[in-house]
Amino acid sequence: MIYFDNGATTYPKPACVRAAVMSYFSQYGANPGRGGHDMSLATARQLYETRTKAAKLFGAKEPEHVVFTMNCTHALNAAIKGILQFGDHVIISDLEHNAVLRPVHGMAAQGAITYTVVKADLHSEENTVAAFRNAIRPNTKLIAVTHGSNVFGIKMPIEKLAAMSRLYGVYFLVDAAQTAGCEPIHMQNMGIDFLAVAGHKGLYGPTGTGLLITPHGEKLNTLMEGGTGSMSMEPFQPDFMPDRLEAGTVNTMGIIGLGAGLGFVLGMGVENIARQEMKVTSAVYQNLSKIEEVILYTPKPQYGKSLPVISFNVEGYTSEETTALLNEKGFALRGGLHCAPLAHKKMGTEKIGTARVSIGAFNNCEQAVELANAVKSFIANKKKD
Amino acid sequence: MIYFDNGATTYPKPACVRAAVMSYFSQYGANPGRGGHDMSLATARQLYETRTKAAKLFGAKEPEHVVFTMNCTHALNAAIKGILQFGDHVIISDLEHNAVLRPVHGMAAQGAITYTVVKADLHSEENTVAAFRNAIRPNTKLIAVTHGSNVFGIKMPIEKLAAMSRLYGVYFLVDAAQTAGCEPIHMQNMGIDFLAVAGHKGLYGPTGTGLLITPHGEKLNTLMEGGTGSMSMEPFQPDFMPDRLEAGTVNTMGIIGLGAGLGFVLGMGVENIARQEMKVTSAVYQNLSKIEEVILYTPKPQYGKSLPVISFNVEGYTSEETTALLNEKGFALRGGLHCAPLAHKKMGTEKIGTARVSIGAFNNCEQAVELANAVKSFIANKKKD
Repeated sequence: MIYFDNGATTYPKPACVRAAVMSYFSQYGANPGRGGHDMSLATARQLYETRTKAAKLFGAKEPEHVVFTMNCTHALNAAIKGILQFGDHVIISDLEHNAVLRPVHGMAAQGAITYTVVKADLHSEENTVAAFRNAIRPNTKLIAVTHGSNVFGIKMPIEKLAAMSRLYGVYFLVDAAQTAGCEPIHMQNMGIDFLAVAGHKGLYGPTGTGLLITPHGEKLNTLMEGGTGSMSMEPFQPDFMPDRLEAGTVNTMGIIGLGAGLGFVLGMGVENIARQEMKVTSAVYQNLSKIEEVILYTPKPQYGKSLPVISFNVEGYTSEETTALLNEKGFALRGGLHCAPLAHKKMGTEKIGTARVSIGAFNNCEQAVELANAVKSFIANKKKD
Repeated sequence: MIYFDNGATTYPKPACVRAAVMSYFSQYGANPGRGGHDMSLATARQLYETRTKAAKLFGAKEPEHVVFTMNCTHALNAAIKGILQFGDHVIISDLEHNAVLRPVHGMAAQGAITYTVVKADLHSEENTVAAFRNAIRPNTKLIAVTHGSNVFGIKMPIEKLAAMSRLYGVYFLVDAAQTAGCEPIHMQNMGIDFLAVAGHKGLYGPTGTGLLITPHGEKLNTLMEGGTGSMSMEPFQPDFMPDRLEAGTVNTMGIIGLGAGLGFVLGMGVENIARQEMKVTSAVYQNLSKIEEVILYTPKPQYGKSLPVISFNVEGYTSEETTALLNEKGFALRGGLHCAPLAHKKMGTEKIGTARVSIGAFNNCEQAVELANAVKSFIANKKKD
């Protein structure tokens, strides 16, 4: 199998991640912070190690600003519902995933907040920033944007948007589901208030892991309350971090694995990963663009401007047909919609979806050639029929 | 190390759980339901297998009634906040964990609901049921009780409470954090509307896993919204199960491990596990009760009436001192409060906490003797000083 579905989850995982997960079974099998015995403390130290690595990779001020969540969706919900209050206004882009759109839309449908969807200008960062600026109202509390589209690989100008948000006193949230580990992100330098991250994608951790990183945790309303191993006699969730936002037993096994994944990314260097992935992405683009029947929706990949994602269709096939035919030939791609209705509407693919190639650190340029050959071969077969 | 902290999380895990987790890395590393390629479908089948086993073990009507959550706390929050609406009243017991108390208290503090704490009568199930019945008001929507106290091992009469709740048209929720896998539970036969379960305790799965099992999922408000791989063009969470309550990528690695844990429990048989654990629990009780300086808070263990949990203190020591001394001797116990303030107040241990012995399927009676010897030896050492 040639795996090109890294935007959904990365595969394979580095050997160090597997080894770290195994250490859960032998060494770190206790519940951290819920007992003072040796294995409990050793497990707690492992979690702190993961927090520390995440804070380093993303330029967070303190390891305590790193909250362990179930996935990126949980992190986004915790931030959006945590910071927004009755009467607030929020601005999102027209490239957002349902993990941003649905919580915002849900709160608006209840009458709690209002929101504006701003069009990202694919050709001008300045126009995009201006459009966001023009959407700001006196009650705008939050700007929430994806770092890059999971469907079309288009990046948003998050540094410029962060600077503008700060100027207007508006909180700035970045959905880094697709970019964490693939693109350099420094929260303090960039001025990001909330960073939502998937652990099992570009950070090469296992599933069941996500991160919400924020210096504003104490201010957030909580999505969930429960045991924290701290302030146990209080019927309220503690007001300090990270306990406030971590109710119940965290996913120690996954987090230990995520620590190893973060180590892998820190060791390789995000820039090196990005460069290698962009090489493969360009090869996919080039090879597919030579095929007459292929419609490419992703602009030509550019280092620093694009994500390692290519969306395409083949004339005469639905995206699901294309990916099913490629599956038969041993390629793992995703077809259909990609949980991003606004982005599909923007690009006019809301009816047919797209076949998506998403590249990870373990892909190479030969696979890009093989993929194009596979596409050519099923087109040729059809012509024969 | 002799591990007596199974109430926090079970250790060790059965070999089959470790092997299942490994299969995630080799065979089931894709994102289920977010791609039609072979590995994605194979991963999805593994999740369905886990749902099916859980439905079987807990007597749920359909595998689709099983929702994967991050932990039991998440399951409890999803049920409590999902079913309660403005103006509702809820009844809880005075043995509840913070995972029930804090969400309920939080909603009440916001003025959304009201709640009543009912005293469990440790000597009469009938009195307990009557006390709950007397607390019912016209606007009572939910009765939420622990199946058994995580501190004192006392069980609640959930079958009788369920029958009474049904009679009065009140939803009945059971927090089975401590009992799932240790006590027979059949939702349909018992009349349980919401069952909240930890995956990493008596089900021997890894951390990062919990279950909310309910036939009422479609009616619940959602805690989180996001990508589901279904109804992607809709800005609302789907109204069908389990998608409605599972936003974002689920913890496939943990859930595959949990499937193996469920297989272990189904294979052993819950009654057999309970019988073996109760033997060890009784041995712990007996051996500790012979030590003059030991204060036991847990009533004498009885098969069918007690959980595999013993809470005690040693005269002249705080619970943390006792567990620290035992840790030095190689025993993993938990001291302090156990995230259950109401239960500690009930038993008068809110200031000193308790040392808790919690027994799992891998403990044996020799370890109970060794534990008592360790307690005797540090008492003797102190007398010498």
